[in-house]
Amino acid sequence: MAAAAEAVTEVEEEQVVNPWEVSAGKGGIDYDKLVDQFGCQRLDDALVARVARLTARPPHRFLRRGLFFAHRDLNEILDLYEKGEKFYLYTGRGPSSEALHLGHLIPFMFTKYLQDAFKVPLVIQLTDDEKFLWKNLTVEETKRLARENAKDIIACGFDVERTFIFSDFNYVGGAFYENMVKVARCVTYNKVVGIFGFTPEDHIGKVSFPPVQAVPSFPSSFPHLFSGNDQLRCLIPCAIDQDPYFRMTRDVAPRIGYQKPSLIESRFFPALQGENTKMSASDPNSAIYVTDSAKEIKTKVNKYAFSGGRDSIELHRKLGANLDVDVPIKYLNFFLEDDNELEHIKKEYKEGRMLTGEVKQRLVTVLSDLVARHQRARAQVTEEMVDVFMAARPLPNMFG
Amino acid sequence: MAAAAEAVTEVEEEQVVNPWEVSAGKGGIDYDKLVDQFGCQRLDDALVARVARLTARPPHRFLRRGLFFAHRDLNEILDLYEKGEKFYLYTGRGPSSEALHLGHLIPFMFTKYLQDAFKVPLVIQLTDDEKFLWKNLTVEETKRLARENAKDIIACGFDVERTFIFSDFNYVGGAFYENMVKVARCVTYNKVVGIFGFTPEDHIGKVSFPPVQAVPSFPSSFPHLFSGNDQLRCLIPCAIDQDPYFRMTRDVAPRIGYQKPSLIESRFFPALQGENTKMSASDPNSAIYVTDSAKEIKTKVNKYAFSGGRDSIELHRKLGANLDVDVPIKYLNFFLEDDNELEHIKKEYKEGRMLTGEVKQRLVTVLSDLVARHQRARAQVTEEMVDVFMAARPLPNMFG
Repeated sequence: MAAAAEAVTEVEEEQVVNPWEVSAGKGGIDYDKLVDQFGCQRLDDALVARVARLTARPPHRFLRRGLFFAHRDLNEILDLYEKGEKFYLYTGRGPSSEALHLGHLIPFMFTKYLQDAFKVPLVIQLTDDEKFLWKNLTVEETKRLARENAKDIIACGFDVERTFIFSDFNYVGGAFYENMVKVARCVTYNKVVGIFGFTPEDHIGKVSFPPVQAVPSFPSSFPHLFSGNDQLRCLIPCAIDQDPYFRMTRDVAPRIGYQKPSLIESRFFPALQGENTKMSASDPNSAIYVTDSAKEIKTKVNKYAFSGGRDSIELHRKLGANLDVDVPIKYLNFFLEDDNELEHIKKEYKEGRMLTGEVKQRLVTVLSDLVARHQRARAQVTEEMVDVFMAARPLPNMFG
Repeated sequence: MAAAAEAVTEVEEEQVVNPWEVSAGKGGIDYDKLVDQFGCQRLDDALVARVARLTARPPHRFLRRGLFFAHRDLNEILDLYEKGEKFYLYTGRGPSSEALHLGHLIPFMFTKYLQDAFKVPLVIQLTDDEKFLWKNLTVEETKRLARENAKDIIACGFDVERTFIFSDFNYVGGAFYENMVKVARCVTYNKVVGIFGFTPEDHIGKVSFPPVQAVPSFPSSFPHLFSGNDQLRCLIPCAIDQDPYFRMTRDVAPRIGYQKPSLIESRFFPALQGENTKMSASDPNSAIYVTDSAKEIKTKVNKYAFSGGRDSIELHRKLGANLDVDVPIKYLNFFLEDDNELEHIKKEYKEGRMLTGEVKQRLVTVLSDLVARHQRARAQVTEEMVDVFMAARPLPNMFG
């Protein structure tokens, strides 16, 4: 997987969304257009209510607030679950950086909620091979980053009895490689050019990669987990830019006798500078990292988080904030758990009674708490724990 | 590897030679032109004499008779060997059929000679993945064929202390997969189109495959054999149609810090019907199989082996045979060990004193003996022996 829930560069008019590039027009990403263009389905209130009812717990705030906003066949997964049948979760990360930023955490926070709510097994793919192919890194460096990133992922609290984390460079082979080759035989070069926009001057590693991200969707890729259970359904939580991989996967699945994976898809997590700039690894001020100190978080939020407040206090009191472009509100939308408090802040801010500084102060507290909690959890992740999560082992209690 | 030392279809004028297609003009394959077109080197008498001197044994008949006729950097391998340094051998087979024919045996017979003469380790790649990608077979079927073919290969007499046989579907992964991805990053789509002639309607499995056949050229792909010996040189005996893979490999090798593999390359083994038809799996009368009985061999040779003899005995006695098109002579050239007898037969036949029937009779004896010997050896190959040859294990005596 590429860095998922980040994104958004401003370029000309046309919006481009694929796993390696997300660019929007002046108005930011048009998610409605994306749903139509990709051919996925909108995740509506009725479906969110159904998830809540089936899991007997309140829906995650990412669901309540439409941050995970699209899906493919989530209803089928829920139909099965309602009948007492099982499924598994698949998500992943392209380990291109040492420290994760908040956008990186979003799919994992959401996936942990799904694992807890549905009590199902989870496979997490670390695409170190992809990062070798797309970035100028050595194999050794991408493998090291995969392991470091695994620690941050483990720190999100996944259940070791239900979770298998694997790096492509370490795990690909055997049944997994068989499925890669089966998928590859079903997809023409023209087709990947249409889906991913490769050019003839791109190296063949890029052309070869999509099957690698496709096959964790098939339980037979994991014989130590799902042997004899080849029709087990798979649900993939991811950001919408990963949809091209799984459009391809869903197209191929029935042709090789497998079930199509279902998807549940999120909006992008914006950069501090706003929806129209990309969180950039080369600009540390564009994102909050999980390694940032409370002081760094405070400085970044106060200095760089794009405000929808007005130029003067007088004007702000009179006109109120423009919530549509306000980054602190967007971040609170992702991370402030209390819906009532969020509504209260939005109302007060929009009507000019609350100032940007006050909203930012609340955001700093929310983010500092979250990051500090993550740092404490991460400090407790040992090398041995990484080895256990990443061992190709049976998980006898994975549905327990 | 594709079915190697077979080949030759008659099409229009232009000759086409790549791992999946070999077609010649009316005059048969122009090997001189091929050497120039591919940019490999001619294997001359001086080099053959040097091999004989260094190994202190007579050169194999395939060398003496120019059947292995081209190479790349064989001289460098011999330089190293002369200085007491080591190298390893790599060859392979695409397991597309149940029974091998004689053409399939040629690279293995020659490789066994090289292993015995130089006392070096050997890796044999069974490209079951390639056959899945190019033929309409299931994964299970290609894996079964790989194992069956391994038995025929073992029956050629390879030394279990120096030989590792692997199937891609079973072995690819880990260090091997790392090297595949490294190679893939160095080769553009345009480049593989230039080398292999893929079209945009070909599936991406084809585009992804060349690195799989490239990386056994690198010792780091086999950590259980060559750990810590990443610069060990590799020599690849193969038919000339495999040259495109290794042209690509040699181009990439220095860019990823590896040694270029050296090559020693053979002519094609002709079909019974002559140099201009292809040995075809769908036409059992085009080839002698290692499963054929003595009676079948006799019938096939007498009925189908294209003769350079004349239409009547009178004319034959007067004009003699045309050795250039005579298949029995070509087959004896590959399989009759005694150079003096071969020269005698050629002379007598060419000058009309020997008749086609007599030459064919000698050929039937030679082939029946060879096939019977192979069948006896093959019958002694147990499943356990296959397991041992195919286990990823250290070979402490591989240079002994």
